[in-house]
Amino acid sequence: MDREPVRYSADTPLSQRVASMRSSAIRDLLHDAQRPGMLSLAGGLPAAELFDVEGIERAFAQVMRDAPRRALQYGATDGQPSLRASLATLMAQRGADVPPKRIVVTAGSQQAIDLLARALLDAGQRVALERPSYLAALQAFALSGAQFVALPADAEGAQVEHLFDPATPRPKLVYLVTNFANPTGATLSLERRRALLDWAVRNRVVVVEDDPYGELRMGGAACPPLVALARDVPGAAHWCVYVSTLSKVLSPGLRIGFAVLPDWLRDAVVRVKQALDLQTGSLAQEVADRYLRSGRLAERLPQLRAAYRERRDALCDALAAGFGDVLRFQRPDGGMFVWARFADGSDASALLPLARDEGVIFVPGAAFYDEGPDPSTLRLSFATLAPAQLCEAVERLSHAHRRLGASAGRAARAA
Amino acid sequence: MDREPVRYSADTPLSQRVASMRSSAIRDLLHDAQRPGMLSLAGGLPAAELFDVEGIERAFAQVMRDAPRRALQYGATDGQPSLRASLATLMAQRGADVPPKRIVVTAGSQQAIDLLARALLDAGQRVALERPSYLAALQAFALSGAQFVALPADAEGAQVEHLFDPATPRPKLVYLVTNFANPTGATLSLERRRALLDWAVRNRVVVVEDDPYGELRMGGAACPPLVALARDVPGAAHWCVYVSTLSKVLSPGLRIGFAVLPDWLRDAVVRVKQALDLQTGSLAQEVADRYLRSGRLAERLPQLRAAYRERRDALCDALAAGFGDVLRFQRPDGGMFVWARFADGSDASALLPLARDEGVIFVPGAAFYDEGPDPSTLRLSFATLAPAQLCEAVERLSHAHRRLGASAGRAARAA
Repeated sequence: MDREPVRYSADTPLSQRVASMRSSAIRDLLHDAQRPGMLSLAGGLPAAELFDVEGIERAFAQVMRDAPRRALQYGATDGQPSLRASLATLMAQRGADVPPKRIVVTAGSQQAIDLLARALLDAGQRVALERPSYLAALQAFALSGAQFVALPADAEGAQVEHLFDPATPRPKLVYLVTNFANPTGATLSLERRRALLDWAVRNRVVVVEDDPYGELRMGGAACPPLVALARDVPGAAHWCVYVSTLSKVLSPGLRIGFAVLPDWLRDAVVRVKQALDLQTGSLAQEVADRYLRSGRLAERLPQLRAAYRERRDALCDALAAGFGDVLRFQRPDGGMFVWARFADGSDASALLPLARDEGVIFVPGAAFYDEGPDPSTLRLSFATLAPAQLCEAVERLSHAHRRLGASAGRAARAA
Repeated sequence: MDREPVRYSADTPLSQRVASMRSSAIRDLLHDAQRPGMLSLAGGLPAAELFDVEGIERAFAQVMRDAPRRALQYGATDGQPSLRASLATLMAQRGADVPPKRIVVTAGSQQAIDLLARALLDAGQRVALERPSYLAALQAFALSGAQFVALPADAEGAQVEHLFDPATPRPKLVYLVTNFANPTGATLSLERRRALLDWAVRNRVVVVEDDPYGELRMGGAACPPLVALARDVPGAAHWCVYVSTLSKVLSPGLRIGFAVLPDWLRDAVVRVKQALDLQTGSLAQEVADRYLRSGRLAERLPQLRAAYRERRDALCDALAAGFGDVLRFQRPDGGMFVWARFADGSDASALLPLARDEGVIFVPGAAFYDEGPDPSTLRLSFATLAPAQLCEAVERLSHAHRRLGASAGRAARAA
């Protein structure tokens, strides 16, 4: 599914790292998603019909009334002061008391990951992360020349205990999506969070917590972010970075993410951002700020959660009914993804073209592995389809799976 | 003026490159610029009172009427198709016939520079650029580990002939601001543009033309961009990259820049951008697109040029009257900057604190040199002050200069 890497030559003199880089399988699939009638379980997109268009229009109007020229002008590299104050309030609601000074606004949480990679990593240094993990984080770290230390994951998230094993090479940085991880849907347990913090302090390792989905909880008990738990672990605040975004709860089109940084790291990240893009757009920041101040986000979150819960359940129920024991998965407590594995050994990458023919697409799990992929895994997003469409999508997937089995049977008989 | 670089230690484990990085002197000066009564000749900001607030409000309203959910959703990494088509039209107006497919939307032109650095440069490879040069480009290239080959500049822009000297190490990439360069204000002559293209083809070197100011021409004859001239030089199109932005003519707060790329480079740049920030904000792109389609930019450019011409002349006239032969400078044909040099050996960095006391700031020229700075140089921006303010600013600068001379005289007598 991945395109061929571009080859280096005197006529196409790409940098070594980029010449061997592959395009994101997922973003390439977005093209397929736009085909008429296609039902996509592939993207990590939020549901567009749940966007608060009216609220954003109001926020824009307010910006244009109050301070249009500030919103259209250059601003500070670390972000508009007003938005950073609003994000500090948001962090307080998430249990972490951080001053606006420690918050840096970024172009989505993706840029925060790249900024951290550039500020912290020299080529060849190690990053520990879940396997499977968020693909674009793998790419950003790889662009900075990182080596990976893979942590297996289970229902309680990354098995951080592997880090404590003296045989595990010590990473410079640990990167984890702590709530409803992409792709596994798992949430890091409180016990593991605490153990990770203890270890990070003792071993002087930066822990980057990426939390794009935390507000989209549909069940289970909420777990405080590491940056909040750090209060109880002496020295831990020095090593905790928290990254989040407004993309999943407000709008990805604004591209507003942010990082909460320890003091020693903040200035370095801001300097890197100066060189990368000077700043994130002032207009989008001012609009996001007015929106956050309007209180509409808190009002709308229950509605968002209810809609996604309904979709999650529709997908999970349909999968259970359509596949039975053949497809193993856990119902996630939130987020947008169901991570599943064929117990019959079906290869998800081989399934994809058949599924596409049936009018449904998904992401084969192999895309989320830096190495050693499990070919029987797949990621199914429930975010962008209505419950009835999810049922139809599973039916198409089930057809494709039967065709895959039939052709595998033919191949076996022919052999 | 630069802050101390942060030191590497086990408790502040920054990457090597970032630990030695300094903050932008110019962006640090922005804090001073906000002091009440301060007249700033320091920033590279466009004049906020010239922003077309009404036009942007209309463009936003149109987006929200036509396609609000597309503008608030994720989009393609290379940019919204409609905006890329509008930018192709803009390029045709600038003399270059390029298909939308070869245009990638970026977070300002600054990000385009970083994307190119990452796609093209391995650590230790050489970038040729003017000395003095655009500071943030130096920073972006340095972050990718580039070595610099400096080209001296004169009234016709960078002396590209230095590249043709066999004694000059061959760079992998040449970076030039071709029109009204930042900081020198000089424009690369047509003869030099043609010679550079010939050389680039023969030597297989990528030429990056950065053109943020080209539309702000106030005098002299326009010179086609390299990407347009490349038509007449067989093979040259393969090596030409053009980078520009809407920041100077529309609004920096939208953060919309773009790169025009040869086919072999396009996919690599898009892959890097996937890892960096997934995409530039869809909303800002859609607003910029509707604005460009409204035709208001073409209507307003004469007005913008006239306003900046008046300011340029006010500053240049005041400098000539206030300093006479002591301050040497050339009246630029466009852009936002006057580059000047004290003929009496005054040190611009020593002048800055005295000037700040008098209520005026500027950027000492040393900030624009990768090495070997000329301490007598300074950059004066005329963009954000009204003509009367520019006269007052020069008067304050002249006071400060007299005080500097007096204190230098005292120091000489004391020695």
